[in-house]
Amino acid sequence: MNRPQYIERMIEIIKRMPGVGPKMAERLSYHILKMSENEVGSLVDSILKARHIIKSCSICYNLSEHDPCSICTDSARDCSIICVVETPQDLIAISKVKDYKGLYFVLGGVLSPLDAVCPDDIRIDNLIKRLKSDNINEVIIATDTDSKGEMTAVYLAELIKKIGIIDIKVTRIGYGLPVGGDIEYADEVTISRAIAGRREM
Amino acid sequence: MNRPQYIERMIEIIKRMPGVGPKMAERLSYHILKMSENEVGSLVDSILKARHIIKSCSICYNLSEHDPCSICTDSARDCSIICVVETPQDLIAISKVKDYKGLYFVLGGVLSPLDAVCPDDIRIDNLIKRLKSDNINEVIIATDTDSKGEMTAVYLAELIKKIGIIDIKVTRIGYGLPVGGDIEYADEVTISRAIAGRREM
Repeated sequence: MNRPQYIERMIEIIKRMPGVGPKMAERLSYHILKMSENEVGSLVDSILKARHIIKSCSICYNLSEHDPCSICTDSARDCSIICVVETPQDLIAISKVKDYKGLYFVLGGVLSPLDAVCPDDIRIDNLIKRLKSDNINEVIIATDTDSKGEMTAVYLAELIKKIGIIDIKVTRIGYGLPVGGDIEYADEVTISRAIAGRREM
Repeated sequence: MNRPQYIERMIEIIKRMPGVGPKMAERLSYHILKMSENEVGSLVDSILKARHIIKSCSICYNLSEHDPCSICTDSARDCSIICVVETPQDLIAISKVKDYKGLYFVLGGVLSPLDAVCPDDIRIDNLIKRLKSDNINEVIIATDTDSKGEMTAVYLAELIKKIGIIDIKVTRIGYGLPVGGDIEYADEVTISRAIAGRREM
């Protein structure tokens, strides 16, 4: 017997999500079929509501219910320092550490020639514009410490120097993080040490 | 910064699904936020459609678009033999093996005293009713070969003998399956061997 096509279709769609293999997609689909009306309602509603309400902050590109987001409008923060991260998840991970009081900028990815991700595909232009217009003293580059993150950090540091914004100090998040690691999964103490140990590039 | 509540809610709901940890739920949620309108539409639509259209077959409790399902209405099948499985996924796994031509019965779980799953919580009554009314010669018990599946198989075999349906042969799926294994994840050759090597209980 073939699986009913409506189950098959749900499995097909769920299978495309990151980190979900065919067996996992099957398991999730059958679980959804066994959930109560109420639970399925909550699941679908939470997806649609989040999609409808969450927007990208027009200053830092963080995901937020408001634009600008609560970090960009927080007057207690040090506006002269920007921490550049790959994703909104990385931003959340760093913001849990109380020692960093500056602002953020979400690149939305990293350079990756093999995947054909070039500077135009991530928000490098927007970052440069912001560095030129705002009164920034320091940019902490907190991309992941894997090869793509490193390459992007080096590219950004050179670009900032090249376009002549010479009064901005460009630093790289300190190697309290294990090399090859993923910021999103680091513990708070490690992130805290990495921020304290940042070095100029 | 705290995560926006609408993202948090989506993570909370996805986290409750089987095999999904907090980090995985976070990853899936952010992925959903990055998906196109079209993709999210397909995801939600596939969930709602599957929930709306898929029903439980009133004879074998398989999930199907029709009631009775295409297996129960297939006149080419041997109606005198029933294969008892735990879940619709197990049924699909066994039905992929072309050598079994009988019918099925989905128990909807296994006995598990520690989780307070007793005979009334799974479809043992419905199975007994079907054995009494239909003209069945053999019941193959194909619950998983882990401790709960074994216990359920023994319980069923004794129950069928006790209630005096003496002309029914009760067999257990053969141990081509590695003991402690999960039928859903077995390969077709192993399942085929296990069916061929079934033994009377």
